[in-house]
Amino acid sequence: MKKSIFYHAGCPVCVSAEHDIINLVGEENVEIVHFGEDKSRIEEAEKAGVKSVPALVTPTGNVLHINFGASMEDVKA
Amino acid sequence: MKKSIFYHAGCPVCVSAEHDIINLVGEENVEIVHFGEDKSRIEEAEKAGVKSVPALVTPTGNVLHINFGASMEDVKA
Repeated sequence: MKKSIFYHAGCPVCVSAEHDIINLVGEENVEIVHFGEDKSRIEEAEKAGVKSVPALVTPTGNVLHINFGASMEDVKA
Repeated sequence: MKKSIFYHAGCPVCVSAEHDIINLVGEENVEIVHFGEDKSRIEEAEKAGVKSVPALVTPTGNVLHINFGASMEDVKA
């Protein structure tokens, strides 16, 4: 199965959601991308439709925005 | 494992998220509650912290609000 991608920016809401998603989906099924550590992935996330973090992009390309940590504008600032 | 509970109200955003969550988590690991079919579950969801649908309450009791379909006020109207 193609992996989901979980995008986050290290905010408390993000970290909490990250733990939940890993527990629910399984660590082996999700790639974790932290924009604070890798800003080069921001463009790819925006192209996928990510408007805020934390967000999960499913293997089928749907974007699930989970709660609200920060907007992508905040992430880029 | 205790099941997660996915609360929704039949809106297009809800149905799309329902499919994604079932694919990601596995149908056997999530109970689906449709408020349009069972309004008696609304109070339980609000006590769990659900503010809008679709939302997933994890086995540990965390609430993941996924995208935005409708507020609980809309659901009760």
